[in-house]
Amino acid sequence: MNVLVLGGSGFIGSHVVDHLLAAGHKVRVFDRAPERYRTALKQVEYRLGAFDDTFQVAEALQGMDAVCHLISTTVPGTSNLDPVADVQSNLINTLSLLEQMRNKDLHRILYLSSGGTVYGNPQQFPISESHPLNPISSYGVVKVAIEKYMNMYQQLYGFEPIILRPSNPYGSRQGHAGVQGLIGTLLARALSGDTLEIWGDGSVIRDYMHVSDLARLSVAALESGHSGVFNAGSGEGHSINDIIGLIRDIMSEELQVNYCEGRTFDVKEVVLDISRAKETFAWQPEISLSAGINEQLQWLRTL
Amino acid sequence: MNVLVLGGSGFIGSHVVDHLLAAGHKVRVFDRAPERYRTALKQVEYRLGAFDDTFQVAEALQGMDAVCHLISTTVPGTSNLDPVADVQSNLINTLSLLEQMRNKDLHRILYLSSGGTVYGNPQQFPISESHPLNPISSYGVVKVAIEKYMNMYQQLYGFEPIILRPSNPYGSRQGHAGVQGLIGTLLARALSGDTLEIWGDGSVIRDYMHVSDLARLSVAALESGHSGVFNAGSGEGHSINDIIGLIRDIMSEELQVNYCEGRTFDVKEVVLDISRAKETFAWQPEISLSAGINEQLQWLRTL
Repeated sequence: MNVLVLGGSGFIGSHVVDHLLAAGHKVRVFDRAPERYRTALKQVEYRLGAFDDTFQVAEALQGMDAVCHLISTTVPGTSNLDPVADVQSNLINTLSLLEQMRNKDLHRILYLSSGGTVYGNPQQFPISESHPLNPISSYGVVKVAIEKYMNMYQQLYGFEPIILRPSNPYGSRQGHAGVQGLIGTLLARALSGDTLEIWGDGSVIRDYMHVSDLARLSVAALESGHSGVFNAGSGEGHSINDIIGLIRDIMSEELQVNYCEGRTFDVKEVVLDISRAKETFAWQPEISLSAGINEQLQWLRTL
Repeated sequence: MNVLVLGGSGFIGSHVVDHLLAAGHKVRVFDRAPERYRTALKQVEYRLGAFDDTFQVAEALQGMDAVCHLISTTVPGTSNLDPVADVQSNLINTLSLLEQMRNKDLHRILYLSSGGTVYGNPQQFPISESHPLNPISSYGVVKVAIEKYMNMYQQLYGFEPIILRPSNPYGSRQGHAGVQGLIGTLLARALSGDTLEIWGDGSVIRDYMHVSDLARLSVAALESGHSGVFNAGSGEGHSINDIIGLIRDIMSEELQVNYCEGRTFDVKEVVLDISRAKETFAWQPEISLSAGINEQLQWLRTL
């Protein structure tokens, strides 16, 4: 297939590109910037542009069989600072994309929603796809709205959307400046000998998924004949303190940890039920948390 | 209470204003235009303005204890023509309103969502509030997104939102130009001796609710200490052909009916489970369908 990867220069995007290439697909990347940690790949056609430039997006869609939409201009931690801007930049531009795809009879789209925010404070564990959607961040509300529009375009216009709700992806090429990505941020600070800053008491539990497991799932889902909504995670929960313990073991070093006040928008626990994705795509996570942390650590050492 | 009614000049708004006044509240109306079918009420303070003028909205919020948000710039039948504009005019402006209320520590809001569109094609009858939300119109998706934001503002900022999901309201002062409001449109055509134009075979079932039952519920809900999402309807389903039969009986006239091709965005059947609203607010619908149709007919004859 000819696949357009919107946001293909980003952390997850760069891995999705790798897995698409490995599976024999032709890849065009549309992003505002080149990859940050690698030079351009020869097999990829890069188009630099802005997601809100509808003409550039229309040009990028020409000749494509499918679209991977991985662009997000906000992160959960900051989206509540300006919900209006969040809607403008993410929901409006995605709607324009869907309208353009509709005009071109291009119906196959993979979208990365968010397993960590769309459910809000979970009512049961593990969280299945039918769990109520009660997000407590604008980031999560916008993801829900985009999901609903994709579902509507499926019912009315024959779209075939694959919506993945990933938990917390981590791994090589993840930014590690502290905005998003706990594991990378902790590893980078540990490597520099800095104190690890933790919001709350370290008991917050997340479902950490190595990015290559997510990218492999993305390609399997895109190649399948299926549509719908699928959780994407490891299916296992680990606390921040578990992560710190693993880093300590892997690095064989003592770590300084500073526990700060918790954030109101942090859900206490997220562990996803990933049985639907496993059964539908004959997929399962392959990289253990300690192996994945070690991969990210080795990558950070090369920078 | 001092209550700001956004959209208070409209069909539903004018009835909510009447019921608020009858219950002893002070009412300020914010709307782009005066009421269409009545002269200004002496007890009401009117402010004409645009919902996207954030300064005018901020001024209108001054001194208020609660807000009834009844503004919608789109209707289900046309919202899919331009989903981007739908999001711009309804979601973005509502988000600005919520942010302004938050800045003023004003947390009580009644919002009219939509029982006819948020559920999409129903999976069971009658439809309860926990039914999955799979709208097939942009109108419905935007209503869902606004509900999710209000829920988020409740969890994070202490908002006390009352979200009503009305079925098909009808009654005096409803527009009857054919855009929205089946009963009024049919009555107006029947009064002029015109042929009744029906999309589909007349078997589409809706839950018709007289506007004064909805307005009475709105005031009871606003006065209560409760928050959350509540269906608002009659709890009974009637087909379009049922309505035509009732109109024929009430007018004692033969009616010409022309059945046209169905619309893709029409859900086949909507009947709401209204037990939550009945139990929470000690409310129930009081106006039968034939009494309500007769009320609307008598009003139309005065025009």
